[in-house]
Amino acid sequence: MVIGILGAGQLARMLALAGKPLGLQFIFLDPTPIACAAELGEHLIGDYTDKALLTDLAKRCDIITYEFENVPLEIIEFLNQQTPVYPPAKALEIGQDRITEKTFLNDLAIETAPFQAVSSLTELETAMPTIGYPAILKTRRLGYDGKGQVVLNSNDDLTSAWQAVKNAPCVVEGFVAFQREVSIIASRSVAGEIVYYPLSENQHEKGILRLATAIPNDALQSQAEQLIHSLLIALDYVGTLALELFVVGDKLIANEFAPRVHNSGHWTIEGSETSQFENHLRAIIDLPLGDTKTLGYVAMQNFIGNIPDIKTLLSIPQLHLHLYNKAPRKGRKIAHASLRTDSLMHFNDAISTLTELAASSDDS
Amino acid sequence: MVIGILGAGQLARMLALAGKPLGLQFIFLDPTPIACAAELGEHLIGDYTDKALLTDLAKRCDIITYEFENVPLEIIEFLNQQTPVYPPAKALEIGQDRITEKTFLNDLAIETAPFQAVSSLTELETAMPTIGYPAILKTRRLGYDGKGQVVLNSNDDLTSAWQAVKNAPCVVEGFVAFQREVSIIASRSVAGEIVYYPLSENQHEKGILRLATAIPNDALQSQAEQLIHSLLIALDYVGTLALELFVVGDKLIANEFAPRVHNSGHWTIEGSETSQFENHLRAIIDLPLGDTKTLGYVAMQNFIGNIPDIKTLLSIPQLHLHLYNKAPRKGRKIAHASLRTDSLMHFNDAISTLTELAASSDDS
Repeated sequence: MVIGILGAGQLARMLALAGKPLGLQFIFLDPTPIACAAELGEHLIGDYTDKALLTDLAKRCDIITYEFENVPLEIIEFLNQQTPVYPPAKALEIGQDRITEKTFLNDLAIETAPFQAVSSLTELETAMPTIGYPAILKTRRLGYDGKGQVVLNSNDDLTSAWQAVKNAPCVVEGFVAFQREVSIIASRSVAGEIVYYPLSENQHEKGILRLATAIPNDALQSQAEQLIHSLLIALDYVGTLALELFVVGDKLIANEFAPRVHNSGHWTIEGSETSQFENHLRAIIDLPLGDTKTLGYVAMQNFIGNIPDIKTLLSIPQLHLHLYNKAPRKGRKIAHASLRTDSLMHFNDAISTLTELAASSDDS
Repeated sequence: MVIGILGAGQLARMLALAGKPLGLQFIFLDPTPIACAAELGEHLIGDYTDKALLTDLAKRCDIITYEFENVPLEIIEFLNQQTPVYPPAKALEIGQDRITEKTFLNDLAIETAPFQAVSSLTELETAMPTIGYPAILKTRRLGYDGKGQVVLNSNDDLTSAWQAVKNAPCVVEGFVAFQREVSIIASRSVAGEIVYYPLSENQHEKGILRLATAIPNDALQSQAEQLIHSLLIALDYVGTLALELFVVGDKLIANEFAPRVHNSGHWTIEGSETSQFENHLRAIIDLPLGDTKTLGYVAMQNFIGNIPDIKTLLSIPQLHLHLYNKAPRKGRKIAHASLRTDSLMHFNDAISTLTELAASSDDS
């Protein structure tokens, strides 16, 4: 069976690594000539809007999926006329616009931060008394890893913020005074089977995820499962879905969802009975889903821009290294490491060594 | 870093899958045009004795290894003049001849079955009163998976057995009345670091491994570690090494060793903190070795000739499927499945379902 993937970055790479033992072949479409998933299949180099390439991809694949949520919707619809594409276009369509996304979530009784659409500096100024400070101004479309986001602390920030987003349609969101940031990941198969992963607790810096820690048996697990369950059903979703959440007391407030495998689920490779990548593939080719039980104490640390010395890293005996075969570059996610231990003491020791190493090589 | 592998079968495939997250690239040399590891790197198609191809391989690789023990020794020596080859030639040289191998083991005080070299029917007849019945006649060289082996139950079997081995130089071995067959796998790095895996208990049928079960904390573990330790040191070994053993009471009797990753260690992919494949690669490129702790109750079932229905297999929630992307063919190892559970009851249930499924599709 041949799987087509739009995008050939690290998520596509990890999907392909998970898919090889299932006997799957991969064809990637990505305009970047040097793409890190390419070594695991065939790489079609060209624009995502190149109809001839898309037709070629659709003809040669049994199922198509994607590794990023900014795929133009018309491409998915074009491909879908010939070959099934999962996750469904609806998830992309809703997720690509922050206003549509938040409205959709609210309609499902999933709480979000207060928000308002703004398309001019005047509208922003008018919105602020309702939203209050601090707040965040985000472009409605095409944001990720904190890109296209500006923090607003007072009326003095509004003009420069509006210049920073270059007059793009935006959403202004009230700041959520959260205690923790978490995410829940779930997979739903063509047959409708659903599995949930334990919550991940996520630490960001400069808008980029740094450390994600599995928190099985968290008191908020079942609440989070209910939220993502209603989302999966409302989207008639197929594949792996991630929902980012703020924890405020005993309440979960949705930040955003990602219709794909997610960075906060990379620890599932070693830390779960079945990884988010394998379950994404099983879901879209309609195989039974794998168990999502966590194996011990588990966490993942991203390496941004640069990688610490590999011998030093691997001298942590329960560390698992994932190099993406990407060149070092400021602010770029180029690798991660997972830890899995059966002792909380060893885990805490190893995490503190690992985060120090990551900080020492960080170039973000 | 580029790793060259002689052979592009399933062992090379699993090595490459383990090596990708370490950022390794692979070049395989294998005469078979369709080889199942080829999709994970570059495949040089040609004879193992093709000097031009070997030179090309050596030039383009940082380190070379192999997936089968019948590599002609002169090839390793030729490659080694340009690029380091691990495991060392000595391990191959000794392992390729059953007489040399058993003598070497005995010299290390590692007990074997009684044996005698025989190179004619007359010598076989002369040996039998000392060896006794039942016994096994094996070709000295080029045997694997029970190939080139004949069981001898009485003097009446000798003539036909000698015809079956086609007059090849042989060893006749006394039969060991074992209670269990086990193996121990260990890895030793360029720097001399050694790690041991827990014993695997192995069930064979028609000379082919069927089921391998991890048996951590077995009473014979430390005895097995001592045996493989002396072998690793005596061979100045680098890489992953497997030693097959018979258990007779509280004694371990060596059958043979394999200077490579081994089928009885496939359960280490999910069942160990670090797999035998990853530790083989770490060992030969001189990285620290990974922890070998077992994760729960673990076993591996081979699929011979054919594969059971995949949906049925994957409906066992803690089953991990490894398809080698090889065409079904009588007697051919084409896939395996691992089980990993944290409950002995679930494990036993799942194993019995799995072995029944394997038996139902078996074509050996």
